Amino acid sequence: MSTRDDYSDENCSIARTLAVLGDRWTLLVLREAFNGVRRFEDLQRRLGVARDVLTVRLSRLVDEGVLERVPYREPGQRRRHEYRLTAKGLDAYPILVALLAWGDRHKADAAGPAVELVHAGCGGEVAVELRCEHGHAVDVREVRVRPGPGARRRAA
Amino acid sequence: MSTRDDYSDENCSIARTLAVLGDRWTLLVLREAFNGVRRFEDLQRRLGVARDVLTVRLSRLVDEGVLERVPYREPGQRRRHEYRLTAKGLDAYPILVALLAWGDRHKADAAGPAVELVHAGCGGEVAVELRCEHGHAVDVREVRVRPGPGARRRAA
Repeated sequence: MSTRDDYSDENCSIARTLAVLGDRWTLLVLREAFNGVRRFEDLQRRLGVARDVLTVRLSRLVDEGVLERVPYREPGQRRRHEYRLTAKGLDAYPILVALLAWGDRHKADAAGPAVELVHAGCGGEVAVELRCEHGHAVDVREVRVRPGPGARRRAA
Repeated sequence: MSTRDDYSDENCSIARTLAVLGDRWTLLVLREAFNGVRRFEDLQRRLGVARDVLTVRLSRLVDEGVLERVPYREPGQRRRHEYRLTAKGLDAYPILVALLAWGDRHKADAAGPAVELVHAGCGGEVAVELRCEHGHAVDVREVRVRPGPGARRRAA
């Protein structure tokens, strides 16, 4: 029988995601991007992050195609750039909602969560769920891991 | 009309989650914990992480109640400890599945994902979904953020 030790984790998608997004400031920049904050000055002010740290994080996200840098010009001012989520960036939203859900459950003030997510269509509260392709809600204890098409056997 | 700038983000649940879990090694330790890896030596070997780094990460997770430290003794050996996910730790699973999904979509090898998650009950593939309380699948563009019961107004 094969065990987890037979397979390499060098192409693990979690590790690869963390290599791009797995940094606290990066995830907070994404949070702000999903809140519609697009400009360097606004990001810097809201996050209270050092300018050089923010510059590095934004460059990385642009290089990775998570944000795109789009020029704009206010009347009478020089041209600046703002940062917009790409489709690849929008795909990161469940990560943020999952982080939010854990914090709401285990770290919220006694008063409750600071923000709520609602479905524009019906006003219902939005959450992340684990579901299988047959539509069942899935508990963590019901999940099994199996090698996928990209699984690599470890060298013996 | 109130805007996002009227509210403080000092009690943001995303930031609070990141303060506990938002470190690359910590999330990789959790990945291994969900894979059933419970012992220091196994974690250290699989992750290739420095022992002191792993020690600090595990202590933090135990202090936060995400892992619990449980004694065990192999025949003829001294007593050791293993690390098991608590209920609070199990609640972090959607974060890992969301990280996995993004990596599978944007960072997988051409051959495809290295692992697949399946529902033990029916064999269907498992994914994270955004859903509202009325059962609608929700696209990121359909999510609206509103102040929750714990929202704090910013000082003027």
